[in-house]
Amino acid sequence: MLAVTILGNNSAIPAFDRHPTSQVITMDDQLFLMDCGEGTQMQMSKYKIRRSRINHIFISHLHGDHYFGLIGLITSMGLLGRNQELNLYAPAALKEIFDLQLKVADTQLAFSLKFHPLQQEGLVVKSSRFEVSCFRVFHRIECWGFIFRQIKPLRKLNPVKAHEYEIPASFFDRLKWGEDYHTRSGEVIENAWVTEEAPKPKSYAYSADTAYNLEIASKVKAVDLLYHEATYLKDLEERANKRFHCTSVQAADIARQAGVHNMLIGHFSSKYEKLDDFEREAQPIFPNTEIAVEGVTYLV
Amino acid sequence: MLAVTILGNNSAIPAFDRHPTSQVITMDDQLFLMDCGEGTQMQMSKYKIRRSRINHIFISHLHGDHYFGLIGLITSMGLLGRNQELNLYAPAALKEIFDLQLKVADTQLAFSLKFHPLQQEGLVVKSSRFEVSCFRVFHRIECWGFIFRQIKPLRKLNPVKAHEYEIPASFFDRLKWGEDYHTRSGEVIENAWVTEEAPKPKSYAYSADTAYNLEIASKVKAVDLLYHEATYLKDLEERANKRFHCTSVQAADIARQAGVHNMLIGHFSSKYEKLDDFEREAQPIFPNTEIAVEGVTYLV
Repeated sequence: MLAVTILGNNSAIPAFDRHPTSQVITMDDQLFLMDCGEGTQMQMSKYKIRRSRINHIFISHLHGDHYFGLIGLITSMGLLGRNQELNLYAPAALKEIFDLQLKVADTQLAFSLKFHPLQQEGLVVKSSRFEVSCFRVFHRIECWGFIFRQIKPLRKLNPVKAHEYEIPASFFDRLKWGEDYHTRSGEVIENAWVTEEAPKPKSYAYSADTAYNLEIASKVKAVDLLYHEATYLKDLEERANKRFHCTSVQAADIARQAGVHNMLIGHFSSKYEKLDDFEREAQPIFPNTEIAVEGVTYLV
Repeated sequence: MLAVTILGNNSAIPAFDRHPTSQVITMDDQLFLMDCGEGTQMQMSKYKIRRSRINHIFISHLHGDHYFGLIGLITSMGLLGRNQELNLYAPAALKEIFDLQLKVADTQLAFSLKFHPLQQEGLVVKSSRFEVSCFRVFHRIECWGFIFRQIKPLRKLNPVKAHEYEIPASFFDRLKWGEDYHTRSGEVIENAWVTEEAPKPKSYAYSADTAYNLEIASKVKAVDLLYHEATYLKDLEERANKRFHCTSVQAADIARQAGVHNMLIGHFSSKYEKLDDFEREAQPIFPNTEIAVEGVTYLV
């Protein structure tokens, strides 16, 4: 499974009960946190996201609405007794801020926080089943997008067949990962008898805060789901350009040029109470556009 | 008027919809922010506190649950077009963190942020009508309490009399401040004809995070309202001592020894879902104890 849960869909100033940027990406049994605006740990409680299941956090850039909630989340993880390693992928200067904040609080984390400064485009995490890579986007300061790709998705279990062969449910996860089952009497139940071919690997791209730039389209080419920022409606294109942000229409154009399957838009300016116009403007250009709504999980 | 509005009554980890420490103190027409845990700006929106009316912010110490929301609040103030000066009273190292966070974001505040490092006990703000002083408390790191004292409260307006003398409502505030009214024809309506003596000046002490220490009682002697932390119930006194925090009973003892009129307790540990026991344990020792509830304004 590849899915994204929206924890914050607003831009800099929290408004209309919308929060600054944060998302949780689910790949099979792993959770990944993408950006962490102020209040993210409260949003995680609200939407029942278990902090302990997150081992990798990605920060696109060092504007506050994308990282001011991170130190609070990490401090809480420590206070809650976390001991497994946490990996943090972010612009290099974040480490300096963190070290200072921990020093003045006279706090030492009880778990290992492994900091990976983002330096060049390419792979940042790789396992046998998925990979995460980063790419540069076009903002006022150093800013990164990320692509999550399944390499080999889990096989599809046929529960009726598994039941016929008397395979215990506790083994089902291992069946999905492709293992054969060995009965007590030594008989081998071949994996292919009880599972089906895995679905096509999926991909999700998060393009962070960026000015309109066609290079993004080539960087996220043909992903299944693209998240693209759309801070303003089209009448404020000039303001969007000046602030290195995009409009609804510019986001839709990138999605179309990139040939992606679906697009989520977010990072809405606090000037908009209602968001319907964002879809109304984007869909004529890219029909599979949806507004990213907080608390909703989008399956890729 | 002197009053305190609770924005957060919990300790380090947000839980049960309780938030980390923050309070707004109202003195006449001025608002003062006391501590600023993560999410304070959202709490301010929820409880209709106008950011623009705050000109002084006090930070007791640099544990995250007392200041992680500050940089977000200040950034938002800037984005919302604030131009009046903001005064910040805090341990010196906070400036270093702020400067770094603004630098990496390539952000310059459009208003003047005047930083006042806390260095010694005594006055930190003084006007003709009130003063704020700070005092040291006993925590694991440098930590400060604050006392807000009215010097000369506003006079009480008699609206019937003011009406009889045909004084326009737009002048009522100035009457409360003690001014005479001059009619168009040059007649003087003396202030004493339409107002009554001001009530007795009030005082409020915020004692921040502290271990149990009787010196606090002498520092906050006889204030009208004392806010004292009570992180744990009495059975966890050993844990409280070890972590430089207090129990319900220790807080009540300080209030009694200090001879204050009323006490609010807060900074509750996330291990407690229900808070009734805090009052139940404290009131036999100090009857005028109340739990600080988020969103509630307590008149001093």
